[in-house]
Parts: sequence; structure tokens; C-alpha cells
Amino acid sequence: MTRIVTVGAAQLGPIARNETRSQAVRRMVDLMRQAKAKSCDVVVFPELALTTFFPRWFMSDQAEVDAYFEREMPGPETRPLFEAAVDLGIGFYLGYAELVEEGERTRRFNTSIIVDKAGKIVGKYRKIHLPGHHEHEPWRAFQHLEKRYFEPGDLGFGVWRAFGGIVGMALCNDRRWPETYRVLGLKGVELMMLGYNTPLHYPPVPEHDHLQAFHNHIVMQAGAYQNGTWIVAVAKAGREEGCDLLGQSCIIAPTGEIVAMCSTIGDELIVADCDLDRCKEIKDNVFRFDYYRQPEHYRLIVETKGVVPCP
Amino acid sequence: MTRIVTVGAAQLGPIARNETRSQAVRRMVDLMRQAKAKSCDVVVFPELALTTFFPRWFMSDQAEVDAYFEREMPGPETRPLFEAAVDLGIGFYLGYAELVEEGERTRRFNTSIIVDKAGKIVGKYRKIHLPGHHEHEPWRAFQHLEKRYFEPGDLGFGVWRAFGGIVGMALCNDRRWPETYRVLGLKGVELMMLGYNTPLHYPPVPEHDHLQAFHNHIVMQAGAYQNGTWIVAVAKAGREEGCDLLGQSCIIAPTGEIVAMCSTIGDELIVADCDLDRCKEIKDNVFRFDYYRQPEHYRLIVETKGVVPCP
Amino acid sequence: MTRIVTVGAAQLGPIARNETRSQAVRRMVDLMRQAKAKSCDVVVFPELALTTFFPRWFMSDQAEVDAYFEREMPGPETRPLFEAAVDLGIGFYLGYAELVEEGERTRRFNTSIIVDKAGKIVGKYRKIHLPGHHEHEPWRAFQHLEKRYFEPGDLGFGVWRAFGGIVGMALCNDRRWPETYRVLGLKGVELMMLGYNTPLHYPPVPEHDHLQAFHNHIVMQAGAYQNGTWIVAVAKAGREEGCDLLGQSCIIAPTGEIVAMCSTIGDELIVADCDLDRCKEIKDNVFRFDYYRQPEHYRLIVETKGVVPCP
Amino acid sequence: MTRIVTVGAAQLGPIARNETRSQAVRRMVDLMRQAKAKSCDVVVFPELALTTFFPRWFMSDQAEVDAYFEREMPGPETRPLFEAAVDLGIGFYLGYAELVEEGERTRRFNTSIIVDKAGKIVGKYRKIHLPGHHEHEPWRAFQHLEKRYFEPGDLGFGVWRAFGGIVGMALCNDRRWPETYRVLGLKGVELMMLGYNTPLHYPPVPEHDHLQAFHNHIVMQAGAYQNGTWIVAVAKAGREEGCDLLGQSCIIAPTGEIVAMCSTIGDELIVADCDLDRCKEIKDNVFRFDYYRQPEHYRLIVETKGVVPCP
Repeated sequence: MTRIVTVGAAQLGPIARNETRSQAVRRMVDLMRQAKAKSCDVVVFPELALTTFFPRWFMSDQAEVDAYFEREMPGPETRPLFEAAVDLGIGFYLGYAELVEEGERTRRFNTSIIVDKAGKIVGKYRKIHLPGHHEHEPWRAFQHLEKRYFEPGDLGFGVWRAFGGIVGMALCNDRRWPETYRVLGLKGVELMMLGYNTPLHYPPVPEHDHLQAFHNHIVMQAGAYQNGTWIVAVAKAGREEGCDLLGQSCIIAPTGEIVAMCSTIGDELIVADCDLDRCKEIKDNVFRFDYYRQPEHYRLIVETKGVVPCP
Repeated sequence: MTRIVTVGAAQLGPIARNETRSQAVRRMVDLMRQAKAKSCDVVVFPELALTTFFPRWFMSDQAEVDAYFEREMPGPETRPLFEAAVDLGIGFYLGYAELVEEGERTRRFNTSIIVDKAGKIVGKYRKIHLPGHHEHEPWRAFQHLEKRYFEPGDLGFGVWRAFGGIVGMALCNDRRWPETYRVLGLKGVELMMLGYNTPLHYPPVPEHDHLQAFHNHIVMQAGAYQNGTWIVAVAKAGREEGCDLLGQSCIIAPTGEIVAMCSTIGDELIVADCDLDRCKEIKDNVFRFDYYRQPEHYRLIVETKGVVPCP
Repeated sequence: MTRIVTVGAAQLGPIARNETRSQAVRRMVDLMRQAKAKSCDVVVFPELALTTFFPRWFMSDQAEVDAYFEREMPGPETRPLFEAAVDLGIGFYLGYAELVEEGERTRRFNTSIIVDKAGKIVGKYRKIHLPGHHEHEPWRAFQHLEKRYFEPGDLGFGVWRAFGGIVGMALCNDRRWPETYRVLGLKGVELMMLGYNTPLHYPPVPEHDHLQAFHNHIVMQAGAYQNGTWIVAVAKAGREEGCDLLGQSCIIAPTGEIVAMCSTIGDELIVADCDLDRCKEIKDNVFRFDYYRQPEHYRLIVETKGVVPCP
Repeated sequence: MTRIVTVGAAQLGPIARNETRSQAVRRMVDLMRQAKAKSCDVVVFPELALTTFFPRWFMSDQAEVDAYFEREMPGPETRPLFEAAVDLGIGFYLGYAELVEEGERTRRFNTSIIVDKAGKIVGKYRKIHLPGHHEHEPWRAFQHLEKRYFEPGDLGFGVWRAFGGIVGMALCNDRRWPETYRVLGLKGVELMMLGYNTPLHYPPVPEHDHLQAFHNHIVMQAGAYQNGTWIVAVAKAGREEGCDLLGQSCIIAPTGEIVAMCSTIGDELIVADCDLDRCKEIKDNVFRFDYYRQPEHYRLIVETKGVVPCP
């Protein structure tokens, strides 16, 4: 058995508000075909890859919000992705807005799935670290209402055996939090997939706008190195409905080195051979957890949510 | 009250095996004088700053090992540092090997202290993440026997009110572990001081040697950003007893940007004005812990030391 | 004689259109005082440091343009800088718009000067690489009319003996052109000073906006390394009249390493000890010009201005 | 006609002194097959790719030196590369030591060629910037006798129409010199290929050893950006006969961004789609030569080889 997974990071350019899921899916299937020509085993798509990034608008009509959500996966419009997986023999990671009815209760998550080469869903993740805000804040150039439109994920940070290794998922803002990587690392993750939608402009602290690209990479490079895992991180990029979204989708080695990066802000496929056995270079040495970690001193990480006042 | 702390990172070049503590202290006092001319409030010295990095040798005679340890702080040879603090009105951080007798028991730690402008010790830290190995491994070009010569620290990751802010400490390998920063971050740290001795050559994985400088910075830059803290990280650098030690001592802003860095591998002072109020740019926004963290999903971080096997 | 020059990079935040030169000068004198407390020998101010960056507006009235120009240096409003130099014993580099009458002809340059600790102008440079455009281009979010308001510099790239070494100057867009560094390098430059005003937004290719910070540093780091020179590069930064200007003013070692960097976008002083003797680490070795250069193969650099069509 | 060239950077791990050219060629053909599976149009191999890096030894016997040189290209041992090009429909760049007899005179060059998909040599380059030294210097850990074993190239920096664009070449140390990129840039280069052998240890200034990886990238990233060209740079890497060679082979976009990088120090193929039309993003804007360059001020670049003393 080979432990090399050829991964494609399939960045998407902007999706306009009036574009249909089918249009987006056609672009994704085209990227899957490109990936086939590069011998990919799996392709990673962005977060909320089927529509425009709708949390940028305040919508008082819940039906208008819900129109951006999927009630089944696959559904009629997303089925071509699953068919392409089977036809081409390529798995994929996909981010989308998920609506589930649980008895009386309607629940909404920012979700991603991993689909294998047989077109079967092998894992699901619901975003845990929801960024943005709950209420309409008209002073912002645009809204970021993930905290309003989604619940925090309830499935934890899972890993799955897929593509010959141990695969984990995360979404966008999760990548800023070292806990994300560490929990997955403690589960032995070898290949982490995540999609993102990251505006270049951060309204609360615009004086950091020029650091968006730097921040995007530094957290993931540290996370990859500190846990000895490959990371594939994929953007929806470009000027979408007047909002500039960061590109620079990338594939990161367990050493923290970026081994492939998109340099456009449109639809773009980049590819790297990820040798999962190379995770051991890190996991068995500088970050050998069972030899070096001292969890008795980490308790505050779970015992408090916010800062504990200094006496 | 001003919240700007002018910090000096006082890198040391090599200390030969036959150099005395007094020689090292003279170099440090000279750096403190340079710091005075730059209006510093506090100076950060390296880990184990008083002697050569003795864990690089296997010594079977415990008395030979113990000769590198301090039994009192200050003692006769280190007192000039405390006197200089008072004379110059400059605090300091110092790393040293600490030997304490507790009844029948002799304990040894890799320790650092913060001393204020009045020459008073305001905080002590004992290194928690001891790197290296326990046994003599003659296949290595040099040993790294911290696990043999020290116990893991027993004081946790503390913070103290000093220099007008909340100050924390760590030592060398601690900086690679995101838990270090996060525990301090949850205690509100605004200024983190740490010393290090980092060989360029890592015997278990020499194919990563060219990444030492990259790894040194990336973990600290991510840690600073993810917790909104200033970090001052100071090396003992240069070719010490045939072993090349990384320099690139640096001062990092809460944005993760390196704002000052040493570019020699000898004794060198760099200085930056650290505005502790700027921590809020991060702490109150992108990393507002109480709004965004989800500790119920982090439990594995404290419930396991090593990797949990994937089913 | 010591060859260490303690340099301050004195970044300015925005200057509003209605602010006077005297207001700007007061801020600069305050930065010089801060520099004194850090034992600086010389302070570097930005390009066009006395007023708002006026080439961002199309003005059809030449008198309105000329109001931004200096006809004497020092003049009544700039004299306090020269007096502060003498009082504090600190030299400075200053960028400003220079208007000279040569007989019938009025000439306008984007100029910088070096002033020594005695308040004497020891060198003048007129910007050679004028960026931007000649004509009003209303499609842009803002204009960049340096090519309209200035002539290209007519003084070449000069060096001067000052502060114990060989000092050269450049301005803003000059730093993007390797020829700038090379001509100065061939004149033995050891310390290069330059000011800049760099909008984060580049209207012709907005898809590169997120790369402004990267581009700013990479050209200067390469230039420093390839010529073995210290570089001090200083921005006017922040949101000036609705236009975001890059900060990240920095001091770069002859190794290409950034040894100090501003992390705000306001008035900020950073300091580094620049040991001019360290230039030899590069100049006498990897970039020993007389041993390695092959000028007979470089002729195209001077024989053509634009691209020569490929047959 | 499409302007996307799919490029493979085919890094080689070490080649022992006793390995034959045929062994190296087999490894290269294997990399070409991998490249085929990734739809590559062209593959770039390292400098002196057929043998160990022989300039690291002083050899007094010229016949021993000459054994490392090629007298014909292709010859019996290198023909499989040309046959693979035809079979697979993939062009390649190859570096090798070239020996030519010109009448009485034997000339030796450090050479590279571009071979098209039909197996035809379309361009040849002879290394202009020879690094290292002429004489045996036994104090070094290893020699670097390129200046002894080769003449400087006599063909200038050429470009050729190939793979749908304008392609140029350089070799190893050439990449440190901005003149290399600029001459090629003035000839309109869109895709620059270069191979290198770069020891991690630089005997004259060992205190810079930890900067080798940084220096390798920074010069090429600046060169790509300043000339708006793709660069494919490929190492012979790893521990070769006791000498550690830098890897980090990479593909760089005209923006200066690294879009693919090797993360091992062995045989490794990385791939990127290089859209040659994207060069215009840079060439027609920030580095529009005919609009911005001022060659009258660059004359020193060709008028002197070494530094001109400052008065």
C-alpha cells in the first residue's frame, strides 16, 4: 500500500449572489477533471462552496437565509459532484450550509464532508469556531453573521480513515485556534482539510488588513508543524459582491512548509503529493506527544472559556 | 501610567566550558548598560545564561553536573546583576539551572526568574517541556540530556504583575508547544519572556536542520498572535564548544510580527517599545476568548498525554 | 572610531490635507527626542514628510500644486528640524517636494536630504524612478500623479561619507528597481536611507493588493543582501485622506534580514545598532563584485530602456 | 493557443561519487514518467545533474576532472532522456559539465540546455557567474572549485521561443545576481529555468549558514517580481558525499510568490501550471520598463566590475 495521497486544492473565485448551485457545481466538476489529469486522489473545495458567502448580509426574513442551505446531500444540484467522484475516481471535501430538521427543531450548521472515490460520504464536520457577530452591525462595510445564521458544531473534531491515512476536517476560523489542530493531532491526524472565506478587510481592526495573508498562513504553518500533519486549505477568493476575499489556498507539509499555493484569486487547482508517512518525521521526534506533553499543566485550556483575571 | 515597556533582548554569544559565571555576568552587566542607554525598562537574557549549555555532555559524575547549578539566587557571582538592576533601574529575566534541597530530596530545575527594577525577584518559572533524552546516546554528534539532568517544572505557567502589565515566562522548548501560550493567554499575559539554547543540528532528523530558524520563529509568531501578547525570545547563540546554536533572538508584537531581531550570533542587544495596550487589538477582537472559544471540544488536550489510536 | 551607527526609523502616521508643515515638524521633532533617549545618531523620516501625499489628487491649478513644494531648505517651518539636530546631536534624512528656479525655468523634484549632527546638509538626492502616471485618470480610486508633478531626478544615485560610513539615498519606488541598489552598491554604500508613501491599493492590478507588504520587503531584503548594505526604509503610513498607506517601516541588515520593523500605522520610532563593518561579511565574500561580476554580459541594462522584442 | 505551461521541478537527491551517469539518468527518466502522470509539458533538472558535484574536490589530475564532463549531448548515457522526451512528449532542462575542443583549445563550461518535446535541443546556456575559488584551499571543509574547472560562459543570457513562450536559463550562483534576471527581463523572459547545487555550509562566513534557505528564495522571489517572470529553480539536494546540499526547489510566480516547493531532500517532483500571460500583470504595470526605467543613471553597472572607491 502506498501512503502518498495526491491532493488537489481547488480554489474557487467569487460566486455572485444570483449564481445557482448548478453553476458552482459545474465549475467544481471542471476542477475535478483538471485534477484527474494531475492524478489526484482527492480534491478539496472551499467552505460554503455552493453559493455566495451569504453571512455578509443581514436578512430579516429567515426563508431568505434558508435558501442558502442544503436540506440533503447530495441533492439534485450537488449530485454531479458525487457522480464525478465515481467517474473520475477522485474523492472530495466540500463545505456547505446544512439545514436539518430534528423533530420540531430546525438546526443550521456550517458543515463540511469528505466523500471517497466511491462517492460515499465518509465523514462530516460542523464548524465549531463560528466567527463574526450575532446582531446587525450597520457600521461595518459588510456583515459577518455566522454567529446568527449557524449553531456551533456539535460533532467535535473528528478523524476518519480515508485515502490510506487518518483525515480530519476544519472550517475557516477554526484554523486560527491552536486547539483545533491539537485535538486533531491527539487523534493522529495526518491530513487535515479545510475551506475558508476570508475577507481582506476586518472591520473591527482595519489597521491589520495588510496582515490577512500573513495571519492566514502563520496559524496553519504552526499548526501543521506542531502536530506533524499535512494541511490542505482552500479559499473562495476574489471580489465577491464587492467584498475582497483572500486567496492563497495552500498545501502545507508536516514541517510547516508551504509546498503549493494558489497565486490567482479565481478558480485554480494546485496539486501536491502528500506522503503521509512523512508525518512521523515530526510526530515521532520533536512533537512526540507521549514523551513531551505535560497535560497536568494545561487544565486551564478546558476549565475556562475566557480570560481568568490576574490577581 | 504609561503602558509602554521598553524591552531589551540581550542575546549572548557562546560561553565556553571553562568560562566562569563571573565572566558571563560581566557580559550581561555590559548589556544592561547598553540597555540603559536605550532607555530600557527590562532586559531578557537567555536560558541557562550563566554557563555553557552543559546538557550537551553525558556526565556520569553527579557532582560534575551539579557544578553547573545555582544553590542560591542571587549568589556571590550573580549578585552584580541584581546590583546593576538597582543602579540602572532596569529589571531582567534570567535563565539558570536551579538546585534545591527539600529535606532529603535534591531537586534540579531549568529555571527562569523575573527581577524588577528594585532588584527583587517577582516571579519564578521552572521549565515544563524538557526536550531531549534521558540516556546517553553516543550516536548523536552531541547529547541533549535535559530530561536526565532536570525534573519537569512544578510551578505551572504563571503570570505576574510587573513593568505595568501582566508578564509570563517560558523556556526554550516550551515555545514549540501551543499549550504554553494558551495557558498564559488565558491568564491574560501581555508580555512573555523566554530564553533558549537551540542547536542548528537536530540529530534525530538532520534533514530538517535548514528549517531551525523557520521553526523557531513560526511557533512564536503564531503563539503571539493567537494570544495577543508581546513575546521576547532570547538565544544563547553561536558556536559553543563545537555546537552551533541558533541566534535570531527577537521581539514579537501581538500581531505576530517580528519587530526586532538579532542578526549576529554573538552578544547583541536589540530594543523595542512594547505598548501593552496594543494586546487588546487582538484580545478584544479576533481572539476574544470568551466569545469564540469552545472548551467542551478541547477536552482531549488534557485527557490524554499521547495520541489516541484511531479506530 | 566606532563603526556602529545607531539608526532610528521614524515612521509618520497620516498627515491630513489641512495640516501645516509646522504640525508635521513638531511630530518629527518629538520623534527626534525619542530617538535621543535611545542614543540614535541619525533618524530617517519618510518621503514627502512635510505634507499630505498630494500626488493623489489631480489639480489643474499649478499654484495649488506648488503650495506643497519647498523653495528653501531649511525654511521657516523646517528650521526646527535643523535646530533639533544640533541640540540633540542627531542627524536626519528628510523627504520633501523641492521647487527650484533655474533662470526662466521652474523645476520640481521629489527630493531627500541627509543632514548631519551639526545641522548641515551633506547630501541631496532627487527621485529617479517616478511612479504613477502623467494624466488625470478618473477611473482610479485615487490618483498617483508623480509623473505629472515632478521631473525625474537629475543627480544620479549618490553616496556621501557621513556618520562614519558611506551613506546613500533613494525614495519610495526606487526601492523596487535592482539598479538602484546596484549603482549604490558599486559606489560602496554601507547604509541606505529611503522614505516611502505606498498605498495598499494599486488601482491597475487590485488583485495584487494583498501582496503590498510582501513586495515592499522582498525587494529591499534582496537589495540589501545583494549589495551588502544596511537599509533604513521609512513609511508615511495609515489612513491618509481616505487612502490606506502601508507601514512596516524597517531596518534591514546586510544579510537581508529585517532587524527592526514598525508594527503600527502611526508615528512610531524603531531603533537598531547598524555595525557598518558587518557589510564586509557580504561585500568581501558571496558578493565580492570584482571577483564575480561579469559586466560584459550586462550591457543590455544600459543599452535599452524597454524590452527588446524576442526574434 | 494556450499559454499555460505545466512545469515539473524534478529535484534530485544526492549522487554518490561512484554512481554512473546511467544511474542518474534512470532516476531522471523515472521523474519524467511521474511528470507525465501530472500532465507536464516540461521538466527542469538540476545543475550538473549527471554526476556528483565534483568541484568539491581538488583534483590535480586533469583527466580525473575531465571524466565528469560530457563531450557530446546526447551521448550514449544521456540519450534515454531525449528518447523519454519524445516518448512522453515532455521537454526538459538539463545541467551538465560540457567539454568542447576548439582547435588546439579544450574549453570547459558549466552548461544547461533546453530540449523540446521532440527531443531537440532548442537552447544552450553556459554559466556566467562562477562561484567559489581557483586554488586549493585546504582550510575549507570542502572545496568549491568552479572557478578552476570551468570558464565563465561565453554565450550571454539568452532567451528562446519554446513551450509557447519566451524561455531563459541560468545556473545556480547566477540567481544571486540581479543582473541575470534583468538582462533576461529586458529580453522579455516569461519562464526562467535554473538548476543549483548549494551547500548549506559556506566556509568563508559560516555564521550565515542558517540563512542559506532564506537567501536562496529571496533573490529569486525578488528577481521574478522585478521582471514579471515565472522561475523554476531545481536543486540537487541532500547529503552528498558528506556535504549537505540545500533542497527547497521551487516554482515562483511573476508576483514573486512561491507556488510550489519541494519539502524533501531527495528525488522529488513538484508541479505547477504556469500561465505565461500572467507575466503581463507585472510587466505592463509596476515594472513597465519603457515607462519607468532610467538607464542613463545605471551606467556604472557596466562601466565597472568592482566597487568604485568613494572620494
